[in-house]
Amino acid sequence: SRSLSLAVIPGDGIGQEVVAEGLKVLSAVLPPDTKLETREFDFGAKRYHATGQTLTDEDLEQLKEHDAILLGAIGDPSVPSGVLERGFLLKLRFAFDHHVNLRPSKLYPGVGTPLAGSPQIDFVVVREGTEGPYTGNGGVIRTGTPQEVATEVSLNTAFGIERVVRDAYARAQARPRKKLTLVHKNNVLVHAGRLWTRIFEQVGREYPDVSTDYLHVDAATIFLVTQPERFDVIVTDNLFGDIITDLAAAVSGGIGVAASGNINPGREFPSMFEPVHGSAPDIAGQSKADPTATVLSVALLLRHLGYDAQADRIDTAVQADLAERTGRPARSTVEIGDALAARVSG
Amino acid sequence: SRSLSLAVIPGDGIGQEVVAEGLKVLSAVLPPDTKLETREFDFGAKRYHATGQTLTDEDLEQLKEHDAILLGAIGDPSVPSGVLERGFLLKLRFAFDHHVNLRPSKLYPGVGTPLAGSPQIDFVVVREGTEGPYTGNGGVIRTGTPQEVATEVSLNTAFGIERVVRDAYARAQARPRKKLTLVHKNNVLVHAGRLWTRIFEQVGREYPDVSTDYLHVDAATIFLVTQPERFDVIVTDNLFGDIITDLAAAVSGGIGVAASGNINPGREFPSMFEPVHGSAPDIAGQSKADPTATVLSVALLLRHLGYDAQADRIDTAVQADLAERTGRPARSTVEIGDALAARVSG
Ligand SMILES: CC(C)[C@H](C(=O)O)[C@@H](O)C(=O)O
Ligand SMILES: CC(C)[C@H](C(=O)O)[C@@H](O)C(=O)O
Repeated sequence: SRSLSLAVIPGDGIGQEVVAEGLKVLSAVLPPDTKLETREFDFGAKRYHATGQTLTDEDLEQLKEHDAILLGAIGDPSVPSGVLERGFLLKLRFAFDHHVNLRPSKLYPGVGTPLAGSPQIDFVVVREGTEGPYTGNGGVIRTGTPQEVATEVSLNTAFGIERVVRDAYARAQARPRKKLTLVHKNNVLVHAGRLWTRIFEQVGREYPDVSTDYLHVDAATIFLVTQPERFDVIVTDNLFGDIITDLAAAVSGGIGVAASGNINPGREFPSMFEPVHGSAPDIAGQSKADPTATVLSVALLLRHLGYDAQADRIDTAVQADLAERTGRPARSTVEIGDALAARVSG
Repeated sequence: SRSLSLAVIPGDGIGQEVVAEGLKVLSAVLPPDTKLETREFDFGAKRYHATGQTLTDEDLEQLKEHDAILLGAIGDPSVPSGVLERGFLLKLRFAFDHHVNLRPSKLYPGVGTPLAGSPQIDFVVVREGTEGPYTGNGGVIRTGTPQEVATEVSLNTAFGIERVVRDAYARAQARPRKKLTLVHKNNVLVHAGRLWTRIFEQVGREYPDVSTDYLHVDAATIFLVTQPERFDVIVTDNLFGDIITDLAAAVSGGIGVAASGNINPGREFPSMFEPVHGSAPDIAGQSKADPTATVLSVALLLRHLGYDAQADRIDTAVQADLAERTGRPARSTVEIGDALAARVSG
């Protein structure tokens, strides 16, 4: 018998509610001989207000003992912008070397999209997670004066780019269309652009069956709304990935169904899975939040740990549930979780 | 009698064709007592291949003698990515201190959009044009090795931010809704983010009748496709502006109607006006290109030089022309230019 040890971080706002449903579906889908052990952590706004702490070295030590992390949402208007983002979310990504941020976009039948027509959307963005302008590098002189100068430094290493590009090629190769698009801005950001382009081409020689493509990030946003079907796998830098995955979520059914994994592919550290949506304090505690994005994040978690059949069952259940929503009354967070749990165990 | 002296840069691909129609409409709309003098410059791929030059100091001296610059499109697949972009387009923006990149997005009646429903879109992006990650700052060590490191440095000055933010507030104040949204990523890019936020709030105190709003760039892309009607004026940095204006063009009728001005508001240097679209070599020379974006750029040019009534007439003519397109056979570049010229002089 196997065991799966999970660190659970409900976090703020609707985090608690959606994570409960994610765990419900996880328990329902796991094979009977797999023992699920969960430990809850209280990170987020409440702990920050009470202790001033966001994520300590000791916290990291404790998180490290788990196979994976499931997170609901972190963030609250009562905490100044940036404190929990950098003090918790980014700190965790860097500490656990989550260099692959995986964000699938699939427009399931029956799900609304702001796009006209019936676009076919089924692609995945592989966003670099530990470099680019996210490293905190940069600074300020003459703060608060009319002569203030502020810099932000984007750091890009061959090492860091190669590993994420390689991951993206492997994912593209495993998909039917086998197509990989590099998104950057190499006509303006030439230093980083040349490095990304060189490594993209170099690694590509090892994947001759994967067809490749390049788009500037500005052009990519156009195609995401006019021809989303042209995308299969996209690999891109940390900041461009942040921007285009929100757009991708918006066109493929909204953040109610957008899942995300912050992955350490070599499993030296536990990977973290979370819905793309935030803590939505306006609807917290009302059982109004859609737990689907969290449930799909659980599927990504299972796939990462090798439970592919179980992940498939969640995907199928979600697809069936979404297809039946049109015209029906809205259900509560718990009702959707119950329905999905029933489907995966049925 | 006044005179208007214009530097004309047809450039590459469809540039020649659309600029000819832009000039036709300009001639038709100008008051009879205004003398139009144009001088054509041959910048672009052909000159680069013949001479290796993109934009020399002498070129800049000659351009400087004009009231404004009208550009068609620069760029050709035969020139390596980045050469004409940095050697010509960006060089001109920096040399002539085009710190306001003005990009209106208006969905005219009868114009198609990839968005479902009938969104109301009428906003303008004021993009900073001389700072951020566009300055060429950054570098590379250990080029071509597995230890290569590349940096890109985003430079942000209180001076540079204040002047563009002030310009944006003034534009917001002059519009009926008087709303200004700052788009940045101040929860991650904290050094630049704090500076932008401080100046945005500080300058805002001088415009108490303008309502303000802040969005992270990733969230802004979501709203651009789900609630574009929420935007009135947006002010943002060079890179974020590049990205969201392409998305904005895509949702508001496509790059066929997207106009752009690279403006030096104090008029120390001539400002440059150009369609957002590129040189489209695939349809060059076939009179298939839509000159509307160039004609709308001419309207921006006229407004910048104080010919407001003439700019209004172009806007009205374009609006009427677009409204009549549905269901009619496609017209050639010249036919559309003729129709618009007839309308503005009628
Ligand atoms: C909250 C923020 C730090 C984060 C990011 O920018 O990566 C978020 O936008 C995301 O995409 O996960
Ligand atoms: C061609 C390129 C340098 C340019 C930019 O990035 O500014 C273009 O995308 C634009 O938006 O005008």
